[in-house]
Amino acid sequence: MSRVFPEDSVGLVRPETAHFSEPLRLACGRLLDEYELVYETYGTLNEARSNAVLICHALSGHHHAAGYHSEDDRKPGWWDACIGPGKPIDTNRFFVVSLNNLGGCNGSTGPASPNPATGKPYGADFPMMTVRDWVNSQAQLADRLGIRQWAAVIGGSLGGMQALQWSIDYPDRVRYCVAIAAAPRLSAQNIAFNEVARQAIISDPDFHDGHFLEHDTLPRRGLKLARMVGHITYLSDDAMGQKFGRELKTEQLNFDVNNVEFQVESYLRYQGEEFSTRFDANTYLIMTKALDYFDPAAAHGGNLAQTFAHVSASYYLISFTTDWRFSPARSQEIANALIAAGKDVSYVDIDAPYGHDAFLIPHPRYLQAFSSYMNRIEI
Amino acid sequence: MSRVFPEDSVGLVRPETAHFSEPLRLACGRLLDEYELVYETYGTLNEARSNAVLICHALSGHHHAAGYHSEDDRKPGWWDACIGPGKPIDTNRFFVVSLNNLGGCNGSTGPASPNPATGKPYGADFPMMTVRDWVNSQAQLADRLGIRQWAAVIGGSLGGMQALQWSIDYPDRVRYCVAIAAAPRLSAQNIAFNEVARQAIISDPDFHDGHFLEHDTLPRRGLKLARMVGHITYLSDDAMGQKFGRELKTEQLNFDVNNVEFQVESYLRYQGEEFSTRFDANTYLIMTKALDYFDPAAAHGGNLAQTFAHVSASYYLISFTTDWRFSPARSQEIANALIAAGKDVSYVDIDAPYGHDAFLIPHPRYLQAFSSYMNRIEI
Repeated sequence: MSRVFPEDSVGLVRPETAHFSEPLRLACGRLLDEYELVYETYGTLNEARSNAVLICHALSGHHHAAGYHSEDDRKPGWWDACIGPGKPIDTNRFFVVSLNNLGGCNGSTGPASPNPATGKPYGADFPMMTVRDWVNSQAQLADRLGIRQWAAVIGGSLGGMQALQWSIDYPDRVRYCVAIAAAPRLSAQNIAFNEVARQAIISDPDFHDGHFLEHDTLPRRGLKLARMVGHITYLSDDAMGQKFGRELKTEQLNFDVNNVEFQVESYLRYQGEEFSTRFDANTYLIMTKALDYFDPAAAHGGNLAQTFAHVSASYYLISFTTDWRFSPARSQEIANALIAAGKDVSYVDIDAPYGHDAFLIPHPRYLQAFSSYMNRIEI
Repeated sequence: MSRVFPEDSVGLVRPETAHFSEPLRLACGRLLDEYELVYETYGTLNEARSNAVLICHALSGHHHAAGYHSEDDRKPGWWDACIGPGKPIDTNRFFVVSLNNLGGCNGSTGPASPNPATGKPYGADFPMMTVRDWVNSQAQLADRLGIRQWAAVIGGSLGGMQALQWSIDYPDRVRYCVAIAAAPRLSAQNIAFNEVARQAIISDPDFHDGHFLEHDTLPRRGLKLARMVGHITYLSDDAMGQKFGRELKTEQLNFDVNNVEFQVESYLRYQGEEFSTRFDANTYLIMTKALDYFDPAAAHGGNLAQTFAHVSASYYLISFTTDWRFSPARSQEIANALIAAGKDVSYVDIDAPYGHDAFLIPHPRYLQAFSSYMNRIEI
């Protein structure tokens, strides 16, 4: 008997791969001669091709945003809380496209892919990516799928930055831009945390200048540390306090640096270990660099309102009260610039205790606010 | 011609060493058979021996809190802003004692000292320390110096925790307790940051299970990362923003993970490198563990007011608005518990942009508030 998936699930899904042989010119000045993008789609493209929605992923995300890959699959896609029949991104109405970005490690061309010039994995020779490069590659995918204009481009965190960049670079191809827990650029503190993560990876002797695959090894220690420090910034102090407090792992203190004393240490070590075996270290470096580089206002002397002068999308911005990685103040900067530019913008700050991770969590007020906006989008 | 030091400086100072041959019983259950404490003193002990003040240091601090070690010394002690003639801890009135804690790496017995049992450096065999252990060793030093009661025990951050512990463990030996930018216990997030720092050190292949000195090496990569992540938590997001913003290191982006792009990356790398050659990795582990373990209310079922029931000191608490490591709310927890216990407490929250590091910085309002309280202490 085959498995019955929840009614509000998109059910079984299968990734597809698009191959591109036209070179892509990148912000770093290099050309990517050919590349593949892996993607999934949920829902049905309507006759008018006017109901397509693009999902952009964050640092460690990928194309598998909703549904299940097999009958035995226990864990649905990373944004299954928000994508499906009757959910905020309602697959009864929208045709949803979700891809793995270039430079990723989940099927799209990236540092672990073979370099056509050498036959060996690119490793550190994979070109540096920017949010703008991703948007350009996503535009190629849109062309391939016959989507001239997105009903909406949507993303959280680094995904929200891609949504903003889409609305700036392709104003006639985006009707709605939904940026959740995003920022118009990183702060010095944001960059500092990224730099610690990168130094952890680069200084791991198993990194081998980024050519660890050729050395048949992985820089696990470095990637584990990078993930641990990242993870702290995804949660609020309160969320950590509620989840772990000062609860001891064993009944009494053992006064030893090798054994964990507190639950939070055990949790972080586990998160780090698990990540270090499934994620590519070069991809992590590229993703954090793309975050650092994102600064669309830089081309306008830092004036964000001027950056938005020519956009035509309507904007929906969501922030979370306890997010200290990209705090509500950062979303408000974007909202204020859009208002100053005379654009259509709605903004909601959701009271949720989960920190930056809130954009992934099915908090009722968040789902409600998200749904109510998405339902107003004409298709 | 000899150098003229500033009028408000204690001038030339010389560390002294006290040797203790009575064993010290530690919280971890072990005994330290003999040990040395290095310390400095500033000002003059009065006839009544009633004007002695103890300075307790924070994570990377030491005994050299004020003045200069030589005529050529360009950098004064770490708290020179607060200790000296006419300064908040006025050496015209007070006799100031400042020591390097046990387990430290600046002269007191610690992991780099020879283990009498083997003749080799203790390394990881040095016993784990707690705030309570430090207070007990400081009480031995007080006895040696003929100081029965401190006019005040004073410290910032981890130093403030020692001041609190003094008032709890030796109520008749402390008249005033001054705890600056402190907390009654670490939060899960505080512990998480410490754990990342420790994992960075422990997973460095040059750590050799804590016996790196015997291998004639230092776990520099790990200690550098530990310091980098720590440093981010000492500064406020605003302070980092004002100091570095998104200023580029070179004129344009170089799209490369090995070169720094932004000033903040360069600053952090420098801070980490510098620290990694001058600080002992085992000491760093011990200091962060002592922070994690500090929780005086644990013995009273988490009831902080009850913990303070029998204290007799007057308390002065100072916090800083932008400190997110030990936020003003943490000082307020202490103040509220003291009020509930019916004790004498004054509290001031200083509006300063420097984050946790503010306790080290000569911000006028801070110095003024600190001085005005200290001047009221009768000697």
